[in-house]
Amino acid sequence: MSRTQPQPTPRPEPAATPRRRGRPSRSESADGPAARDRILESAREEFAERGYEKTSVRGIAKAAGVDSALVHHYFGTKEQVFEAAVAAAAAPALGASEAIADGPVDGVGQRLTRFFFGVWENPATRTPLLAVVRSAMNNETAATVLRRLVVAQLLSRISDELELPDAELRAELAAAQLVGTAILRYVIKLEPLASADAEQIIARVAPVVQGHLTGR
Amino acid sequence: MSRTQPQPTPRPEPAATPRRRGRPSRSESADGPAARDRILESAREEFAERGYEKTSVRGIAKAAGVDSALVHHYFGTKEQVFEAAVAAAAAPALGASEAIADGPVDGVGQRLTRFFFGVWENPATRTPLLAVVRSAMNNETAATVLRRLVVAQLLSRISDELELPDAELRAELAAAQLVGTAILRYVIKLEPLASADAEQIIARVAPVVQGHLTGR
Repeated sequence: MSRTQPQPTPRPEPAATPRRRGRPSRSESADGPAARDRILESAREEFAERGYEKTSVRGIAKAAGVDSALVHHYFGTKEQVFEAAVAAAAAPALGASEAIADGPVDGVGQRLTRFFFGVWENPATRTPLLAVVRSAMNNETAATVLRRLVVAQLLSRISDELELPDAELRAELAAAQLVGTAILRYVIKLEPLASADAEQIIARVAPVVQGHLTGR
Repeated sequence: MSRTQPQPTPRPEPAATPRRRGRPSRSESADGPAARDRILESAREEFAERGYEKTSVRGIAKAAGVDSALVHHYFGTKEQVFEAAVAAAAAPALGASEAIADGPVDGVGQRLTRFFFGVWENPATRTPLLAVVRSAMNNETAATVLRRLVVAQLLSRISDELELPDAELRAELAAAQLVGTAILRYVIKLEPLASADAEQIIARVAPVVQGHLTGR
């Protein structure tokens, strides 16, 4: 499949290193941080564009201009590359989740909703999110990664703060409103939702999220 | 279309007919309602199992025990087969939407939520729904069908009853809570949401749906 595609233009970087079989050379390993980041970036783009099932380690390596062996060296299996790519994409959210959870509890719905749509409204962060959501809809491995990584860590920090007996279920129903709105707005592109002003949506959704988390 | 090749020998079951090239015979066309239903059923199963992109008219025809030409004869293109399969799957929902919309407006959240989870809790109706949702997440054609058919018809009936200026947006945000909950519960299988009692979820979600539709 990748063979029919146009060859990427040669780059001056280690990307231009001729592809070899076998273990990565010392120079490729020494190029660690840059190559590693490039692989993650390519992985995110490949998963976003093709979905989990159609993406291959080979395709990711090619897009990053490295040997497949280097991808395996840094990350392991395709599932592990996916998890690392999702973790990298989710890092800002996980960092923010502390600030979201730690503020006054009666503003948590507003903070979470505003943060959530901030990430989705930004095309740079929307793409990896779309990749995760699409992949998780169609592949059990990807769904497991999503469960384990994003939701467990992000939602549990919020539900821990609630100190209510059914806090986890509350957090998940709040997430359901957010995720459902994102899917109908950004993926299915339902009108008028898709073209509505983000502030108008936040104004309607934030009280619902707050209600799920702390209501009744 | 049966004019060119009248079949002299009538067969009891077109499913047992050996596969042939060319136009469907008179006997296959004559077997209309049964063959048509069988094709729709196979289409639903194929789309559910493989998703929109990987499903072919040929595969549907094979599963239904008919020639591809008969599928084209009844439905047209793959997109049209998909639309027909979705329409068949959505028919009970569209039928119910009148009853949901027509009752007392202060119970519409309860009626819609109860109906929605009734359909999802039933494995027989869950499968075609999953097919539509998965396909729409990954394919623009499938997303268009979902937009046009299910949402436009189902949601517009409900929003028409509300007689509020932003009724459509309200209906879509209500749908977002429902769709998001279904995705996290039945597709991503987040716990505790996935194992929670349906009545517990309905008790929490119905007031939110009602609030979106008629609140504030």
